[in-house]
Amino acid sequence: MTDLLDPETPFAVVDRSQLDANVERIRRKLATFGVPLRLHVKTSKSVDVARRVFPEGPGPITVSTLAEAEHFADAGYVDMVYAVGIAPQKLERVIALRERGVDLAVLLDSIVQADAVAAASRRSGERIPALIEIDCDGHRGGLLPDDPDLTAIGSTLHEQGGELRGVLDHAGESYFASTAEARTAASLIERSAAVHAAEALRSAGLPCPVVSVGSTPTAFAASNLDGVTEVRAGNFVFFDLVMAGIGVCDHDALALSIVVTVIGHKHEKGWIVTDGGWMATSRDRGTADQSLDQGYGIACQLDGDVMPNLIVVAASQEHGILAIRPEDEAPLPDLPIGARLRILPNHACATAAQFSAYHVVDELDETRGRAIIATWPRSNGW
Amino acid sequence: MTDLLDPETPFAVVDRSQLDANVERIRRKLATFGVPLRLHVKTSKSVDVARRVFPEGPGPITVSTLAEAEHFADAGYVDMVYAVGIAPQKLERVIALRERGVDLAVLLDSIVQADAVAAASRRSGERIPALIEIDCDGHRGGLLPDDPDLTAIGSTLHEQGGELRGVLDHAGESYFASTAEARTAASLIERSAAVHAAEALRSAGLPCPVVSVGSTPTAFAASNLDGVTEVRAGNFVFFDLVMAGIGVCDHDALALSIVVTVIGHKHEKGWIVTDGGWMATSRDRGTADQSLDQGYGIACQLDGDVMPNLIVVAASQEHGILAIRPEDEAPLPDLPIGARLRILPNHACATAAQFSAYHVVDELDETRGRAIIATWPRSNGW
Repeated sequence: MTDLLDPETPFAVVDRSQLDANVERIRRKLATFGVPLRLHVKTSKSVDVARRVFPEGPGPITVSTLAEAEHFADAGYVDMVYAVGIAPQKLERVIALRERGVDLAVLLDSIVQADAVAAASRRSGERIPALIEIDCDGHRGGLLPDDPDLTAIGSTLHEQGGELRGVLDHAGESYFASTAEARTAASLIERSAAVHAAEALRSAGLPCPVVSVGSTPTAFAASNLDGVTEVRAGNFVFFDLVMAGIGVCDHDALALSIVVTVIGHKHEKGWIVTDGGWMATSRDRGTADQSLDQGYGIACQLDGDVMPNLIVVAASQEHGILAIRPEDEAPLPDLPIGARLRILPNHACATAAQFSAYHVVDELDETRGRAIIATWPRSNGW
Repeated sequence: MTDLLDPETPFAVVDRSQLDANVERIRRKLATFGVPLRLHVKTSKSVDVARRVFPEGPGPITVSTLAEAEHFADAGYVDMVYAVGIAPQKLERVIALRERGVDLAVLLDSIVQADAVAAASRRSGERIPALIEIDCDGHRGGLLPDDPDLTAIGSTLHEQGGELRGVLDHAGESYFASTAEARTAASLIERSAAVHAAEALRSAGLPCPVVSVGSTPTAFAASNLDGVTEVRAGNFVFFDLVMAGIGVCDHDALALSIVVTVIGHKHEKGWIVTDGGWMATSRDRGTADQSLDQGYGIACQLDGDVMPNLIVVAASQEHGILAIRPEDEAPLPDLPIGARLRILPNHACATAAQFSAYHVVDELDETRGRAIIATWPRSNGW
């Protein structure tokens, strides 16, 4: 049996018991509303992580790329939403997935795309389902709920050969909502925009069976999901420092970390140099604009105990610089060359993408999180 | 034959003729000094890119990971420096590479590491060569050239069973040097620190055959390389917006770009939405602190013509937001849904790492850069 001292660093670690606790937390939250989770797999891109969410077999998922869709289709997943606006050229690959028996729905917010989906539907002899993207807070694409194009797009889809399956939105603003009240407000806006758009479609005599909302911050802050048929969330499986920084979780909830090795010291500067550079952490600096900047991540002992004032203050490609955070005065811990520690990442989606697999530990097993009990591959690319 | 309209987006493109021009530029520069290039392969991690630098067969390279060393060893490369301070646990993998006939030298800056290399040398029955890292401008590890530990480390290596091969430094400060004069000054400091350290070792009766310096900015700005035995540089094969931003190259020299597809518009905000999010560009915002912030990259027409005031102003995982740069007032170009364009990246090393291969075009061939003439794989991970 190998443990966290064995693989060459840097490598990614998932704590399975913490992952399970995070899954249980969202399950309990959504159960109060009776609304199902459509797991966003873009964070982990791992069938093994998804299995902890769906222990009884493949459930509904959201994908951010068609490569994810194909990876999960290979594992038996058949209910998917591809939640990035469809490029017409990608419809052939969508059709190929649907011909494998995958009920893959696409996303769009324009007549051009609706025409393309309808044309591809006629070409393939089967209605391709599409959700119309709704913009609830101005962060990327989507129609405003009262945009007159909404019913025009819905009609085009419905009448020209596609399938109008419903509406979808995402409260991008919630990632900056640093109080529970602000996240609840973001959730209400997210729900309201989607439900309002669905009503507009139905009032025009169009079908709208699906009303899809979601983000990790709004999922945990929801106070009303009336009219919502599914919640999309994905980051919660691992959480990260950005989520902790706005108060969605605490540091102990972070299920993903990176193991690095000390390779040097600059005593006169108070630096510990590691082999965990930005190639391992990613370049994501998502906490830079939060109230407490975590650099490229917080250090933990190898067993997961957080060293809250030791952070990665700088990174080059394969070097990380650990130091006491600028606002603190604590002494530098004694971490000799060869010592290993874990780094909690700013943004789990970005950091996980730097790796092709996760080494899995379980802090509740008899080894107390030291033994590597599994290695879970992940899918990357497009 | 496929062209840039065929692969699904996002994908990475290398312009071979521009790569060749960049290679020729550094070749001519270093030829004036008679100092050989030790190509840093961490930027491209591609044997095919390295072949454009070494058309007559494998030459000396620098690697940032042992995975790169193994990848290039598989392609016949036998002369390598692993330019990240050695973690003692990685020495077994170094020995395995050396037993395959690869003359791989490691880097260190402490007695602990020198002891570990000497012990591994005795264990393996062969002296493992090591360079001592010198700090010329305070950016990461290394000893100051007059640090008394320098000769102690050298003696430990030399007398306990390792091979003291020389010294190595890197002018990290040169990436912030926005005038040719400042880069020349950085080059002189880089040279001086390395030569001074080499002299200190030799004065103590120790060998120091290798004096290794380098970075892309200092390589092009060098005015004196007396006493230097090799120059390490790697970014120059592709260049990037950070290099252009400090004046090392112009935008036309950038040989790496990302092809993306338009998937939507937010007319009221002046946004064009693409499928090129930060998963494609990386999270690197290296131009954020330069005089002209390029967001997540500058847009080009698919044929490579730069649209200098259209940049990626924001990115989420699989969405890029194109807009006229904030300081300009130009009209938004007409880029309909489905249109493809290229994005020039801030930092080639980080952006290239998001992909497993490069599609290759050649703007000087009969297709004027439209045909994909090859696909070059790259090595990722550790």
